[in-house]
Amino acid sequence: MSLTISIDAMGGDFGLDVTIPASLDCLRANTELNLILVGDQEQLKPRLASALVDFAGRLSIHHASECVGMDESPSKALKNKKDSSMRVAINLVRDGCADACVSAGNTGALMATARFVLKMIPGIDRPAIISTLPSIFGHTHVLDLGANVDCTAEHLFQFAVMGVEVVKAVENIENPKVGLLNIGEEDVKGNEQVKSAAKLLENSSLNYIGFVEGDSLTAGHVKVDLIVADGFVGNVALKAIEGTAKMIGSVLRDAFGKNLLTRVAGLIVYPVLKSFKNRIDPRKYNGASFLGLRGLVIKSHGGADVLAFKTAIQLAECEIKMDVIKKISEQVETSLALRECV
Amino acid sequence: MSLTISIDAMGGDFGLDVTIPASLDCLRANTELNLILVGDQEQLKPRLASALVDFAGRLSIHHASECVGMDESPSKALKNKKDSSMRVAINLVRDGCADACVSAGNTGALMATARFVLKMIPGIDRPAIISTLPSIFGHTHVLDLGANVDCTAEHLFQFAVMGVEVVKAVENIENPKVGLLNIGEEDVKGNEQVKSAAKLLENSSLNYIGFVEGDSLTAGHVKVDLIVADGFVGNVALKAIEGTAKMIGSVLRDAFGKNLLTRVAGLIVYPVLKSFKNRIDPRKYNGASFLGLRGLVIKSHGGADVLAFKTAIQLAECEIKMDVIKKISEQVETSLALRECV
Repeated sequence: MSLTISIDAMGGDFGLDVTIPASLDCLRANTELNLILVGDQEQLKPRLASALVDFAGRLSIHHASECVGMDESPSKALKNKKDSSMRVAINLVRDGCADACVSAGNTGALMATARFVLKMIPGIDRPAIISTLPSIFGHTHVLDLGANVDCTAEHLFQFAVMGVEVVKAVENIENPKVGLLNIGEEDVKGNEQVKSAAKLLENSSLNYIGFVEGDSLTAGHVKVDLIVADGFVGNVALKAIEGTAKMIGSVLRDAFGKNLLTRVAGLIVYPVLKSFKNRIDPRKYNGASFLGLRGLVIKSHGGADVLAFKTAIQLAECEIKMDVIKKISEQVETSLALRECV
Repeated sequence: MSLTISIDAMGGDFGLDVTIPASLDCLRANTELNLILVGDQEQLKPRLASALVDFAGRLSIHHASECVGMDESPSKALKNKKDSSMRVAINLVRDGCADACVSAGNTGALMATARFVLKMIPGIDRPAIISTLPSIFGHTHVLDLGANVDCTAEHLFQFAVMGVEVVKAVENIENPKVGLLNIGEEDVKGNEQVKSAAKLLENSSLNYIGFVEGDSLTAGHVKVDLIVADGFVGNVALKAIEGTAKMIGSVLRDAFGKNLLTRVAGLIVYPVLKSFKNRIDPRKYNGASFLGLRGLVIKSHGGADVLAFKTAIQLAECEIKMDVIKKISEQVETSLALRECV
């Protein structure tokens, strides 16, 4: 089975300094993996000289003369940067030269370009962004995380159908539990979209467990594998969670940094604090998949370091192996057929 | 100056076990405070026998024969429980016998009853719920936290006008910085409601600083005093933050509870962990104000303990002292007048 990933080597806040070492680590870790690093060959060649020998036949450079800025408008990037590392990396997926693309570039430009180049899966109206959060039960998968700001019930339903295939693939669960994000668990709660989406989900073959509240993303009273939300709500919740983890980390550091005594105490419990940090390390949750497209695109956090970018590449490996795109397409077809029968 | 608060003594998960000791603590702490405990006098009398002597003239019982259940539907509570402790406590505010009411009861029923009994401030279309979150800068005030699920730009603007008066009162800041919760800071980001609300805020006399993202609630890159959001988004974000704090606390406990060695380490750093916990203790942030009504109503968390319920009563004391309702009414009038001039 082919396992080839195109890497937008120039993307992200740290560009080659992160994408190259992460790529080489992944090649070392998985001998079946092939990588195509897309970017300025003048910069890539000297830095990959020995690696191209070590990983001969598995690592290659694909030149792209341009680079999309982190703050560039998606429409401008799409219109003016036809030879950007991002665009070319996605083209390789469209042309069948790569099975997935990983980029730490500008989210809006990546989504616009991926949608333009790869097109949508028939039956899916809008792409959605899915990612994973740490929870007291392990992980929770959440979508949409910001691709859409106004979702109808039908969109939310489609997100659920797509998200379930990702959860099945990544978590190896047969029938993931799906919850719909709302401001209460009772049927009467929420806006019209979530109420109608709940009806669609109740009548589907999905393992829909009902409305869940914001705390279910990380620490609900029952385990939920997949939480479906409008992109506006999902994005705000994701960032609220990131901010809270950051704030708590900062308060904890303050408490241990207060004076000499607390600093010594911090040294004593360093291994415990490290194991704590490891469990909720955001770098281990890096990598969001764009769903609904006819090709796999994984978005890494722009500020990803080597470990985080590696996690994103490994997510792409997993989704390729599990043939997520094909499964989503099949599932969408089945869901639509079922709907027509009703 | 009068400082009288009616307490829905029967409300909350723990009823009298929490509301009585918290009330007595507050009477001890503030000798200007008067409290009216509303509820079943058969239960209240024996438990307050000595307190009624100790706080003669400052503590009284007001009988109410019914109690609103925590899961009771708001409309049923409003229709059928006309002599509930919640309803009677709010009636006391309407009748001028109390300056504010504090309840740990069912949020929906409290909002519906408060709105029905107290009526809206002229010029305000919808009530909103405001509360405080800990942040790396101190606190952030956020509204709406769930009173409304579909807000127009005008609603968001009204929330900002009202929220600013609360922040001024509670934080003693002259010109609070107001941010609008969105999925990006750029003008092009977000849905139509936030884009239009941004225009209203830019043209107002408020200290509007622009769009802020979900992380700004607790750990943004700039300090924001007040964050305005649609109730759906605000509620999900609030609960996501609560869940994350809970999850991180649980992971930290696990790390220190792993084995004998880590448990000993935990004992050594106990004072540090305690000071850390103190800083983000949710009980210190208990108490949400219902804004837009012609009277002060403070909602305590249903699961509040004595310390948390005390915080809610003290929030009521502060808002009474600062005459928040009068200031909101005046500010709304000014804002409307300004709008008509434009």
